[in-house]
Amino acid sequence: MSLISKLRRILVGPPIATKHAHHERLPKIFGLPVFASDALSSVAYATEEVLLVLALAGVAALYLLMPITYALGALMLIVGFSYYQTIHAYPKGGGTYLVSSENLGSWPGRVAGAALLIDYVLTVAVSISSGTAAIYSAFPQLQPYKVLIAVGAVALIGMVNLRGARESGIVFAIPTYTFVGSVLVVIVAAVIRSFSEPPHAPPAVLPTQPDHLWVIGPMLVLRAFAASCTALTGTEAIADGVQAFRPPEAKNAGQTLFMMIGLMLTMFLGISWTASYYGIVPMSTAQPGYQTLLAQMGTKLFGEGSWFFYVLQGATALILFLAANTAFADFPRLSSFIAKDKYLPRQLMNVGDRLVFQNGIILLALVAILLLVLYHADTHSLIPLYALGVFISFTLSQAGMTAKWLREGVHDHRMFISGFGALVTFAVAIILLITKFEEGAWLVTVAIGALLFLFAKIRKYYDFLQREFEVSPEDRIEPVRTTALLLVPRLHKGTLKAIAYSQSLTEDCRALHVTLDPESAESIKREWNRLRVNMPLVILESPYRSLIEPVLEYIDQAIEDDPEAMITVIVPQGVPPKWYQAILHSNVAALLKLALGSRRNVVITNVRYFLS
Amino acid sequence: MSLISKLRRILVGPPIATKHAHHERLPKIFGLPVFASDALSSVAYATEEVLLVLALAGVAALYLLMPITYALGALMLIVGFSYYQTIHAYPKGGGTYLVSSENLGSWPGRVAGAALLIDYVLTVAVSISSGTAAIYSAFPQLQPYKVLIAVGAVALIGMVNLRGARESGIVFAIPTYTFVGSVLVVIVAAVIRSFSEPPHAPPAVLPTQPDHLWVIGPMLVLRAFAASCTALTGTEAIADGVQAFRPPEAKNAGQTLFMMIGLMLTMFLGISWTASYYGIVPMSTAQPGYQTLLAQMGTKLFGEGSWFFYVLQGATALILFLAANTAFADFPRLSSFIAKDKYLPRQLMNVGDRLVFQNGIILLALVAILLLVLYHADTHSLIPLYALGVFISFTLSQAGMTAKWLREGVHDHRMFISGFGALVTFAVAIILLITKFEEGAWLVTVAIGALLFLFAKIRKYYDFLQREFEVSPEDRIEPVRTTALLLVPRLHKGTLKAIAYSQSLTEDCRALHVTLDPESAESIKREWNRLRVNMPLVILESPYRSLIEPVLEYIDQAIEDDPEAMITVIVPQGVPPKWYQAILHSNVAALLKLALGSRRNVVITNVRYFLS
Repeated sequence: MSLISKLRRILVGPPIATKHAHHERLPKIFGLPVFASDALSSVAYATEEVLLVLALAGVAALYLLMPITYALGALMLIVGFSYYQTIHAYPKGGGTYLVSSENLGSWPGRVAGAALLIDYVLTVAVSISSGTAAIYSAFPQLQPYKVLIAVGAVALIGMVNLRGARESGIVFAIPTYTFVGSVLVVIVAAVIRSFSEPPHAPPAVLPTQPDHLWVIGPMLVLRAFAASCTALTGTEAIADGVQAFRPPEAKNAGQTLFMMIGLMLTMFLGISWTASYYGIVPMSTAQPGYQTLLAQMGTKLFGEGSWFFYVLQGATALILFLAANTAFADFPRLSSFIAKDKYLPRQLMNVGDRLVFQNGIILLALVAILLLVLYHADTHSLIPLYALGVFISFTLSQAGMTAKWLREGVHDHRMFISGFGALVTFAVAIILLITKFEEGAWLVTVAIGALLFLFAKIRKYYDFLQREFEVSPEDRIEPVRTTALLLVPRLHKGTLKAIAYSQSLTEDCRALHVTLDPESAESIKREWNRLRVNMPLVILESPYRSLIEPVLEYIDQAIEDDPEAMITVIVPQGVPPKWYQAILHSNVAALLKLALGSRRNVVITNVRYFLS
Repeated sequence: MSLISKLRRILVGPPIATKHAHHERLPKIFGLPVFASDALSSVAYATEEVLLVLALAGVAALYLLMPITYALGALMLIVGFSYYQTIHAYPKGGGTYLVSSENLGSWPGRVAGAALLIDYVLTVAVSISSGTAAIYSAFPQLQPYKVLIAVGAVALIGMVNLRGARESGIVFAIPTYTFVGSVLVVIVAAVIRSFSEPPHAPPAVLPTQPDHLWVIGPMLVLRAFAASCTALTGTEAIADGVQAFRPPEAKNAGQTLFMMIGLMLTMFLGISWTASYYGIVPMSTAQPGYQTLLAQMGTKLFGEGSWFFYVLQGATALILFLAANTAFADFPRLSSFIAKDKYLPRQLMNVGDRLVFQNGIILLALVAILLLVLYHADTHSLIPLYALGVFISFTLSQAGMTAKWLREGVHDHRMFISGFGALVTFAVAIILLITKFEEGAWLVTVAIGALLFLFAKIRKYYDFLQREFEVSPEDRIEPVRTTALLLVPRLHKGTLKAIAYSQSLTEDCRALHVTLDPESAESIKREWNRLRVNMPLVILESPYRSLIEPVLEYIDQAIEDDPEAMITVIVPQGVPPKWYQAILHSNVAALLKLALGSRRNVVITNVRYFLS
């Protein structure tokens, strides 16, 4: 086993055979953490982001939190019902890309695909940033290392995912359920305490200087609502991954979806209510001792040094890191669907020997790390980029379902639910585009455009490839003649082996020796005769001392002499015992390969000679 | 002509044939600028460095400048006479490495070689830094860009050298003679003005706070003298490059050497005297409006805005940049000598198609740029590293000459000159080592040690290679059988060509198809039969979905079946019209090559299929 294989085995684990693939299916108890951590975890930052927008209009605007929370709750239910229908209509996996391609056509499908790919990357970036914030809310001394922590977390999650889906279920279940439990404990504690404590007024000093351009009005409400919509990202994950559930897949996936929506609703409502009742507002991240909104609640209700505070922070950080995992399960799967339709490189199609899409996982990790470094792992800076892509894909997915019902003649409540879902999510997408345009949504629009352009180019190339490669009925295998040209810089043991090899290939063998001084040519001729080599030795003069040019000229001449023949250039190469010793060998084969460029009918072969 | 060739042609010029090599020889008038600019240009900073040391002991110590200048003048003559003898004893080129290897043995030769290689790099770094200082002495607004200017200059000089020696002569003659002329004008002006003006006292404020640890004493004098020794670096260049002169080489080179020593002496004495008479002391580089000592003289005698001031500064900058050129002529030549003795990689031996040692030039440029960046192109910081290597090699060269005279029974003045030279330069080397040890000479010592270690390792490897490769009288060319294994991922036009090619190589051909699903295997079998391919098609199952593993296993089995046969693995590869489209092809050949590792008797061949 090579060094690379060994290293891979340690990091990624032993391979899993295709016939065991079925065993990697997830029961509901593991399906929820794997596919729902994104959606569930967003309660850790969504309320905070809503309040940060409202604070722009001053303390008086904060009362809008609860109405916005109710609106978002309604939206959750609408989206939830829509996707429940999708799961049952597509028990093989109702990914947005598939549903919109199949029912609306390739273009809308590609738009949905591009939008989702971008949002998966943002899911990783936002969740990891927010998880890092949970850590330094508990340990303020770690704040300077936030980018480092964030990047390390992405790398770790990427590696875990390379190990395959089954372990993911086990590893991710405990923190997810701990998080859900902790948040419910916070909410219950807040409710109990509210019996003995009157509502608090919010503090007079807000994290952001109230901006007098902002007054309570439709634009402020829309913007705050847009901020809350990040909570819905990830809702589509279960529908995409129906096939990862144990049979009956659709039923299990549908139940898991409702479990998820129920938990999200409860937690989001509870957190918003707690913030409103106790007058808790976000801190500025620039403030020393910054704590997230959720950490402030933990501190307020249980005390900063309490063990429960650390459990809450730990579980929050972990579930947010695991939210990134949803994207690591979904991004490679979606890429592989798009690659199967030839809009992405075919390397993204291959399932690796752990039954995961390795290339997609690695690509996602790299892009997310880039974003984290560029945005200094700051949640609040990344939020404006987020959620637009998801709502574009929601809209297209529901529109696709509506088209399907119409086509199939289904005019009952199912068509109504899908159509209503499509309209509502379309309206939200427009709101997101308008309210976040300047802050970052423009960049997402550009990125979607760029991806669509890339998709088209890639598809065009693969179509070209297919036309070029296609075997037509007239195509025959025409016999070819082969000429072997053996390069002989010096005569040594490796050369002897290469001579024997060349002779085994074809009758028409010639040895080429490029000479810079006549003496070396004489000595090689003497050796050649002494060994009685049954192959003509051609001495090439090199007026300009290049070792490559004369060979190229000779090859060109040979091509001219017999344009139909294949020319095999054989280059003997010593392989040193240690890889770094290769720097002491001149690598003629590589130079020659580069220089040969687009000469047709020329094949270069390295005959390696291993030095003990 | 490929893109690379075209670019090369533009940057480096058309190739020069070996038979025209002789025409690249230099007449004395060009030999002086090419080989002496290093030695001549050092007068631009040597006096300044001496004064910077003396200033440590306060104003009272400055009078020591003239005695030190006389001592250095004597040393110049001693070294000059020694090398004159070397030139005549070694008319083929009396490089230090050659002289010490031949007369003292390989070890001393290698020490001299290592020391000189390091000093050539420092010549580039110091000269370029000092030349950059001449520029920003005239244009203070450029000081913030000094590193950038320095790096650009190295790149430019490297490129000029890649174009070959002849152009070097023409390009470098004008600034060198302008510099010499300008400095002589400064000195003559200083002498004339001294008739009408009494000597000035030096200013009370010195560039460095006088350091009370330093009093006028032997250590101070030795340290100041050590600083002056940088003026001698480059003296050996002419002896190294005798063969670059027109015949009679030794006579022309010897005369050029004396011309050089005469000019150096005159200029160094004149500059030191001018500084002493007019009380000019160096400025601190931290001071705004910093000027080099020479620039101060130009300002004082001709006025800052005068055209002559700018001529002087321009010529100084240029000759210093050209001093770097001495190293660019000598470093690659020395590397090639050492490489011929198998102590450096053989790639450094090759003369390129412009009759210059391309790899050596590129290596020198890279290392010098690294030093300039690390030391912020600051002359004063680099000086402590400088000159030690040169004096080690002077000592070994003169010792070698002494040994030669002794061996040849020559006991006249020639032996005395060489022996005396060896003793004096040895003493100077010891002085340099002691006085500069902490400031940087330790680093040079470590670097020389590291180079010697590297030399030994490289030689050991080449010796091993020779033993391994040596053809013994019993060696015969044993005929081998070849088995061809053709990889067929899909059946397309490129595959047809590869099938024909495989069949042309050997009777024993097999096609391998790795299948991930049984359907694709069936379809390829049908196609195979339809085309009536006369070659068995082996279908390999891949339980772990790897495309490489089953092929490796099959190859291992084939090796086991017939350990003596050569196995040629043929991989068809589509070559896309644009290079970047290659990312859309899966590169199986490269992966396979990596995975095959050290399996013997396996040859991998790419059969390329060009897509129009």
